[in-house]
Amino acid sequence: MRTSIATVSLSGSLTEKLTAASRAGFDGVEIFENDLLASPLGPEEVRARCADLGLSIDLYQPMRDIEAVPAEEFARNLRRARHKFELMRRLGADTVLVCSSVHPLAVDDDALAADHLRQLAQLAQEFGIRVAYEALAWGRHVNTYGHAWRIVEAADHPALGTCLDSFHILSRGSDPKGIADIPGEKIFFLQLADAPLLAMDVLQWSRHYRCFPGQGGFDVAGLVRNVLSTGYDGPLSLEVFNDVFRQAEAGPTAVDAHRSLLVLQETVGVATPPAPVVPTGVAFAELVTPDAEPVAAVLGALGFARAARHRTKPVDLWQQGEARILVNTSGAARRTGTGLAAIGLESPAPAGAARRAEALLAPVLPRRRAAEDAPLDAVAAPDGTELFFCATDRPELPNWRADFADGAGGSHSTHDIGGPHGTDGTGRSHGTGVRRIDHLALTQPWHHFDEAALFHRSVLGLHAQESVDVADPYGLMRSRAVTNADGSVRIALGVGAAPTDDTVHAQHIALATSDVVAAARRFREAGGRLLPIPANYYDDLAARHEFADGELETYRELGILYDRDAHGEFRHCYTMTVGRVFFELVQRDGYRGYGAQNAPVRLAAQHTARAVIGG
Amino acid sequence: MRTSIATVSLSGSLTEKLTAASRAGFDGVEIFENDLLASPLGPEEVRARCADLGLSIDLYQPMRDIEAVPAEEFARNLRRARHKFELMRRLGADTVLVCSSVHPLAVDDDALAADHLRQLAQLAQEFGIRVAYEALAWGRHVNTYGHAWRIVEAADHPALGTCLDSFHILSRGSDPKGIADIPGEKIFFLQLADAPLLAMDVLQWSRHYRCFPGQGGFDVAGLVRNVLSTGYDGPLSLEVFNDVFRQAEAGPTAVDAHRSLLVLQETVGVATPPAPVVPTGVAFAELVTPDAEPVAAVLGALGFARAARHRTKPVDLWQQGEARILVNTSGAARRTGTGLAAIGLESPAPAGAARRAEALLAPVLPRRRAAEDAPLDAVAAPDGTELFFCATDRPELPNWRADFADGAGGSHSTHDIGGPHGTDGTGRSHGTGVRRIDHLALTQPWHHFDEAALFHRSVLGLHAQESVDVADPYGLMRSRAVTNADGSVRIALGVGAAPTDDTVHAQHIALATSDVVAAARRFREAGGRLLPIPANYYDDLAARHEFADGELETYRELGILYDRDAHGEFRHCYTMTVGRVFFELVQRDGYRGYGAQNAPVRLAAQHTARAVIGG
Repeated sequence: MRTSIATVSLSGSLTEKLTAASRAGFDGVEIFENDLLASPLGPEEVRARCADLGLSIDLYQPMRDIEAVPAEEFARNLRRARHKFELMRRLGADTVLVCSSVHPLAVDDDALAADHLRQLAQLAQEFGIRVAYEALAWGRHVNTYGHAWRIVEAADHPALGTCLDSFHILSRGSDPKGIADIPGEKIFFLQLADAPLLAMDVLQWSRHYRCFPGQGGFDVAGLVRNVLSTGYDGPLSLEVFNDVFRQAEAGPTAVDAHRSLLVLQETVGVATPPAPVVPTGVAFAELVTPDAEPVAAVLGALGFARAARHRTKPVDLWQQGEARILVNTSGAARRTGTGLAAIGLESPAPAGAARRAEALLAPVLPRRRAAEDAPLDAVAAPDGTELFFCATDRPELPNWRADFADGAGGSHSTHDIGGPHGTDGTGRSHGTGVRRIDHLALTQPWHHFDEAALFHRSVLGLHAQESVDVADPYGLMRSRAVTNADGSVRIALGVGAAPTDDTVHAQHIALATSDVVAAARRFREAGGRLLPIPANYYDDLAARHEFADGELETYRELGILYDRDAHGEFRHCYTMTVGRVFFELVQRDGYRGYGAQNAPVRLAAQHTARAVIGG
Repeated sequence: MRTSIATVSLSGSLTEKLTAASRAGFDGVEIFENDLLASPLGPEEVRARCADLGLSIDLYQPMRDIEAVPAEEFARNLRRARHKFELMRRLGADTVLVCSSVHPLAVDDDALAADHLRQLAQLAQEFGIRVAYEALAWGRHVNTYGHAWRIVEAADHPALGTCLDSFHILSRGSDPKGIADIPGEKIFFLQLADAPLLAMDVLQWSRHYRCFPGQGGFDVAGLVRNVLSTGYDGPLSLEVFNDVFRQAEAGPTAVDAHRSLLVLQETVGVATPPAPVVPTGVAFAELVTPDAEPVAAVLGALGFARAARHRTKPVDLWQQGEARILVNTSGAARRTGTGLAAIGLESPAPAGAARRAEALLAPVLPRRRAAEDAPLDAVAAPDGTELFFCATDRPELPNWRADFADGAGGSHSTHDIGGPHGTDGTGRSHGTGVRRIDHLALTQPWHHFDEAALFHRSVLGLHAQESVDVADPYGLMRSRAVTNADGSVRIALGVGAAPTDDTVHAQHIALATSDVVAAARRFREAGGRLLPIPANYYDDLAARHEFADGELETYRELGILYDRDAHGEFRHCYTMTVGRVFFELVQRDGYRGYGAQNAPVRLAAQHTARAVIGG
């Protein structure tokens, strides 16, 4: 189906909005009146710009407070409408949105409303324009789609139809089933928005908190199915008022928006992008760093062995159990400091996974970085993290592992690690019982947190859990986990309280172990430093839970945190931070969460540690 | 009365919170449990730190889900309470807050609740501790203060009383009159918070949107009067959960918080700071600039004459009618670029105005900058703007004007203006009919918008109007005007959408004229450049209003914007921006607003102009 977006959904000048919509693949736009008023381009210039960009102007919006008002007021409204219809002709827009009245003088008189709308439609028809009448959720007398449709039906004019808006319908809890009773040709337009399920004033909710379909709590797809059952064949158009999008760059927001419509079309069965290929595990996490030594020291103390080196690039593979970490010191890395740059995901069908990602607008990365490398499928996530779709040790497919030569300290080695960590001369390790990567925590750009969850859900086929708030000493964070069914892929998406918030710019890699106490001890014995946890935390644990003799003392000594849920217990501890990355050792005995209960203590301890070491 | 603040109301580590509370003048604190848990200081160290800072620990909070739960659960609760009472003894805190239960297993049984609370109080008494039971607005069975008090009364234990919280009471619309029936000695604690009047889920409202008394929509003072009528003599304590304060620096937030309690005490009649002295006019606005030439060019074209020069400093006085603008090129100014740095307010009693400001925690500025200057009373507003309390031409008082020598171009002149603007050799001007400063627009630091309104209201005795939202192309702004009764002092406080938002860092000076068309023409003839307004705006004006022949064409030609309200019409236009400042010419024929309707068009036009001129 054709896709469209209201210019109010994007930030910037009208030109910036149109360009972003076109580049993201939209077929058309709704022109929001205020965006036109504020533009230095005249209507004919906007029309030409849209044509150049391959965009139709599907709607001009909004006209307000037209119907069921006193006669003198209505005469003024018709005069105003004539001006706007002339403008629309210059603009080349043939449908206008009329919202149900919120005018203080509007009366509750459906016959008068129908009469006024019929007169308006008659005038519109002279200009070749159609009027789409929509019930605002907070309309003075008309605030349900059924009521708006009854008035349109009574007015009975060919240039008058209705506009449906998923927010106005679903925010009031109206049942969208009744839509099926409206003839499709009388549905002149369909506006789509989702929203988080907030119990708040509907006007404020609408103006500040709308989001793209699939990012909120509404069943937008269910509504669209009802609309399609009528034979509606107009565009699917996004109209999203959102304080965050107003500040975000228009380009990425438009991509996020268009992806949401692609997913929606798949959900309702009118589009069939390549099917999702759900990852079945984490092949590796890749750290980039200007200086491998501090990372190598921590990995060594964690019991990782430097198992292999990339044949052509300064990338080491560190391994313990099934946990693999690449340490990349190549040139590009030097610019960004130490950070988590890429994730290798085990994929049953790497090429298929990449095809789906590409269809859902993820930037595809070059398959082969160098002539001799294995050709790998990879895309970029919204936060810039590179996602590699891997087939480790499957002979029929390109294998990332084949780019690495076994054995550390080979001819490409630019550093000799030595010292208090786990690698001996043979590349073997003392080990700390780490079995695999439990989860990866990625910090998201502030303006794209909702996009990130939808991306991981739709592109990778992961399941998104509920978002949780976590108190940092310097602001409230939000965190949301995405996982596959068996929990072998878990990614925690985090975001700070504000665009400037740099308190949480610490990504981390959590390592699964079956005995976190033993792992923590061995890490310390190997010279590793664990994050100190305040003694007060353990006094509180003692008040909340009963522990075996000595257990709490062990946790206190090592800095191990404790939580439990209905499924089991959770014990975890943290290394000190290197650059923007730290490691977590976790022992997950059935527990399904991520220790959110302990996150405020961890965050405060990290601030303390940073203040102490001046990092 | 004694004042206190909950540590959760301030950002940072526990140490930072305590320091900020002490410096702002609080007598005590409530220690929020999570702040203690996250602190590396043990209870005894926190106790010592508080003593050093002159702070008592008035409350430890919160204990949750204690009462009316199954017996096994209650036994665990008593065990937990014993731990916490031991902790409180180490901390030196003698009152604990217990919130009404939200536990899923809690039963609706007042007798059981009273029995459990009596047992808890009995245990507390052994530790010399008092239990203050509070109804959460979202408590499972107990959610009104009256209900909580009935249970406390039934429990009838000397170590058990109630805690009242203005948010929990007023957010539910409970009538606070019933408080007067509770014996004062059974009100163990009083927590205060205000909140904007939002129709939203009360838990979310409470956790994210509370603010300090006087900054929201609740009648907190009325509630406090009821509490005081009982004989309550404990502290007035602020407990404010707010997403913005969580990110703001603790120091300024604590000052803002304490000021709100000082004003509250004055309102309820238990404190008598020096009375407000409402300003009666704007004596001057002071611009600082590293380069006087661009500012002088605009002022000259606006018809201002350079009327005088400061006797000892590089400050020129430009005047037209009663509008006076100081242009300061002194060294300090060079660091910040061109901006609005100070406002002279005509005051019936400058010293009294300064005494009130000081009593309400405004930083007092040195009265005399140099030995020969007139001693002026001045304070700093929260945004750093210097406010001078002036007595222009009143012989009995120090006169700022006496520091200036009449006649421009004197021996201190470092620049000769010349060219296409209004000053001739004698310091006289062609004039554009500007009569006085209509209003001043100041950009507020993002974290202190609510503080700014309370400051101007309480310190200066101005009236604060409603806050309005204004759409900028790159984010939503908020704006709120403060005025005196006759409108001779009007200050518009603006704030961007986010801490990083630099789109609105343009302060401005609006100049009142009785004929904006004539003024705009003369400005242009004198070489001034007005902000171009898009033609589309005038098409819309034509659709919305009827104008005399040629009127709209004139507005279009000059870039004059138009609005009207119930009181009259408004015509206004803008100069191009110099540094961070621009000027507005306004013709206000009874109109009471500030052209908010036109602000989105103005903001977009400023972005366009900036893009065009590369500024």
